[in-house]
Amino acid sequence: MCADVDYRIWELKKKVYEANMLLPKYSLVTLTWGNVSGIDRESGLMVIKPSGVPYDKLTPANMCVVDIADGSVKDEGFRPSSDTLTHVELYRAYSDIGGVVHTHSAYATAWAQACRGIPCYGTTHADHFYGEIPCVRPLTQEELDEGYEMNTGRVIISEFERLGIDPAAVPGCLCSCHGPFCWGKDPEDAVNCAVITEECAKMAFMTEVINNKAEVIPQRIMDKHYYRKHGEGAYYGQN
Amino acid sequence: MCADVDYRIWELKKKVYEANMLLPKYSLVTLTWGNVSGIDRESGLMVIKPSGVPYDKLTPANMCVVDIADGSVKDEGFRPSSDTLTHVELYRAYSDIGGVVHTHSAYATAWAQACRGIPCYGTTHADHFYGEIPCVRPLTQEELDEGYEMNTGRVIISEFERLGIDPAAVPGCLCSCHGPFCWGKDPEDAVNCAVITEECAKMAFMTEVINNKAEVIPQRIMDKHYYRKHGEGAYYGQN
Amino acid sequence: MCADVDYRIWELKKKVYEANMLLPKYSLVTLTWGNVSGIDRESGLMVIKPSGVPYDKLTPANMCVVDIADGSVKDEGFRPSSDTLTHVELYRAYSDIGGVVHTHSAYATAWAQACRGIPCYGTTHADHFYGEIPCVRPLTQEELDEGYEMNTGRVIISEFERLGIDPAAVPGCLCSCHGPFCWGKDPEDAVNCAVITEECAKMAFMTEVINNKAEVIPQRIMDKHYYRKHGEGAYYGQN
Amino acid sequence: MCADVDYRIWELKKKVYEANMLLPKYSLVTLTWGNVSGIDRESGLMVIKPSGVPYDKLTPANMCVVDIADGSVKDEGFRPSSDTLTHVELYRAYSDIGGVVHTHSAYATAWAQACRGIPCYGTTHADHFYGEIPCVRPLTQEELDEGYEMNTGRVIISEFERLGIDPAAVPGCLCSCHGPFCWGKDPEDAVNCAVITEECAKMAFMTEVINNKAEVIPQRIMDKHYYRKHGEGAYYGQN
Repeated sequence: MCADVDYRIWELKKKVYEANMLLPKYSLVTLTWGNVSGIDRESGLMVIKPSGVPYDKLTPANMCVVDIADGSVKDEGFRPSSDTLTHVELYRAYSDIGGVVHTHSAYATAWAQACRGIPCYGTTHADHFYGEIPCVRPLTQEELDEGYEMNTGRVIISEFERLGIDPAAVPGCLCSCHGPFCWGKDPEDAVNCAVITEECAKMAFMTEVINNKAEVIPQRIMDKHYYRKHGEGAYYGQN
Repeated sequence: MCADVDYRIWELKKKVYEANMLLPKYSLVTLTWGNVSGIDRESGLMVIKPSGVPYDKLTPANMCVVDIADGSVKDEGFRPSSDTLTHVELYRAYSDIGGVVHTHSAYATAWAQACRGIPCYGTTHADHFYGEIPCVRPLTQEELDEGYEMNTGRVIISEFERLGIDPAAVPGCLCSCHGPFCWGKDPEDAVNCAVITEECAKMAFMTEVINNKAEVIPQRIMDKHYYRKHGEGAYYGQN
Repeated sequence: MCADVDYRIWELKKKVYEANMLLPKYSLVTLTWGNVSGIDRESGLMVIKPSGVPYDKLTPANMCVVDIADGSVKDEGFRPSSDTLTHVELYRAYSDIGGVVHTHSAYATAWAQACRGIPCYGTTHADHFYGEIPCVRPLTQEELDEGYEMNTGRVIISEFERLGIDPAAVPGCLCSCHGPFCWGKDPEDAVNCAVITEECAKMAFMTEVINNKAEVIPQRIMDKHYYRKHGEGAYYGQN
Repeated sequence: MCADVDYRIWELKKKVYEANMLLPKYSLVTLTWGNVSGIDRESGLMVIKPSGVPYDKLTPANMCVVDIADGSVKDEGFRPSSDTLTHVELYRAYSDIGGVVHTHSAYATAWAQACRGIPCYGTTHADHFYGEIPCVRPLTQEELDEGYEMNTGRVIISEFERLGIDPAAVPGCLCSCHGPFCWGKDPEDAVNCAVITEECAKMAFMTEVINNKAEVIPQRIMDKHYYRKHGEGAYYGQN
């Protein structure tokens, strides 16, 4: 690599390291579970957590570099997360995203295990996700044999197409019997989506216990909240 | 402003800042959600958290000043919370209150998403709220179009009137599909109400799971507990 | 008081202070809720938390002294907990106990609000309580009028008698629509009972959700666990 | 003992101490509940936590040494955990294990109290346990009389045989009305199994609330995840 790429990748390793360290901070991971990646679009290189390394042993230097063109590992040293090829597929299909995160956070994983998407019951959800966070179908035997992690990514992508969901408006999903994948404009933003997914999963769980006939938020209020934070008419925050 | 008002507003900014910092301390907020305000009744100026600023970036100096006469922002710098006009309406209608808080705390928000008020199941609730914490109706399309945040406040006020609830005896409510608003004599007292609302929401959730035919507290015990802490015959605490 | 009593009461104030400070440590209290007392049997003086004082403002010196003979306050300064006369009644009736604690811990309070005792579903419970932790009846209007806190204690005592429960084998109960009272050989031991009550309340809640036909622990296993820790044949611990 | 054994046992005491201290770190214990052991296979000596000692009083030096040939205590000083003979039976039957842990962690204990095994609802579970974590039957009166703790171990062993479960592929179980026992290649690995058991118990609880007709993970996905981490084809982690 030329010096310029080297520099950018080193900066990205620091960002991806910081974003991974947010997972234990937000109580989204147990033991070594979970991983965050980021991408340098110019070189097509992705940086991701190494596989099975405890969070208190992570450093920016042991983040792994992978070429999204072919999924090949670009540096010696640590083996990348076993979920690497799922991240690769998402970056290849969704050219606007800059970060991806996978966790086994408890409530979101429970919805995935229940094979149900997370209904949009309130403004907390509508502020960030424009509608249900879908639960995508389990892989077939053939998909498992052919490449489990790659096909996990491909199933997410084809399910969003089939359901007509815009991955920019719903930046995350649940994989059946597995857990959440979320994405965002950079690694930190992707982690924020994972935090919000877990919180919405928790509140939706409680909502259904409190009212087993709970209804999703009225469309007009979902629109109001989503567009208060997104798009040209947004007026939330300082920009 | 004259020096006297300047001084009082600076003191209020410190109090409002401290009250906002209680929200993460009591685990009532995730990310940047939630906001606390306080008012200087003499000048009619309200101080409130800036919009979308992370709690660890807050300082007394970046609190925002708003005139409740017309909702106008009185200083340059940060944009006030997007919920500002809800706070303004509450201060205008309830002349005895000195602080307002809004959170998306998990259990209270779940009751709001379930479109149910929090029943008064026990003395923890009756010590602070004289009866159910009501869940007020969602806004109509017209109300949304006309001014979402202003009308959120107006719906709270008109619902309390319609239901015959005294906002001094029940200093908080849930907004359907959204979350709790609470108030008190000052910003810290309002936060205490938010803490209690969340704790009562949690216990009421559990109560119904343990006994799906649970009944609200007998009126005589509610009276005893409420008046042990409030009014002329109160004998709780040191005053 | 003579110097000897003064000394013993000062030592007791330190113990009662330490036991009160365990309540926030074990997450059994919110805000100022909850109180622990201890007794000096020789003088008949009880030491208890002052009413409504935040835990971070407590010191051994502001603990309050009350004579259990008549419930009178024995020192100037802080007003004792509003639940003082409930503690007094328990010390008067149960001459072997040395500490009493009252909390609004979430799960135990939810069982109280559901007006149900905590069934003995497992060995965690049987290690410490020989059978169900009962939920005693609410007070009548007459009992409320006559002395709420005193009669709260008296109802506990008469309910244990009516149900044939030994307060040494079941050192705690729930008051309907209110919360738990626990006791022990000293203030710290009483707090341990409150910790165990909350943990058993939590596990019993979960147990019924997992199996809505869950049965209480077989008598033979309850006996084995209880007597492994209590009585002459006990072999748990270091004594 | 010869110097060589002395040295190895001292090293083991340090490891067992460290593993016990992980229990409060991972919030798996309340008060003094729970215990971890490890074994030196060459000498047949097991090291285990002393009975009823608070975690903040534990040191490597007060760990207890027990001969698994006959369950006899090999050093003066502290009395070993009351569950010692359960650990002994597991080491005697399962010659490949190097650590055993018992806790009363809340969710796993609730499944035990509900007398239900933890179904394998997702990949979090399948990554570590090849199928349901079984709940073994309660002891009979005769087994209780004959030796409660020894027979607790023997029932686990005979139930795994009866059910045809390989204790290497399912390194843990629930004892009816009691709580989990887990094992692993060393004390730390056994604690990891206890952490995972608790997390799977929590998620399975939620899964059933979200979908009361939830189905266990498809066999093909369980196989994929389990063998991604175990056996010759494993490719998770750094080895």
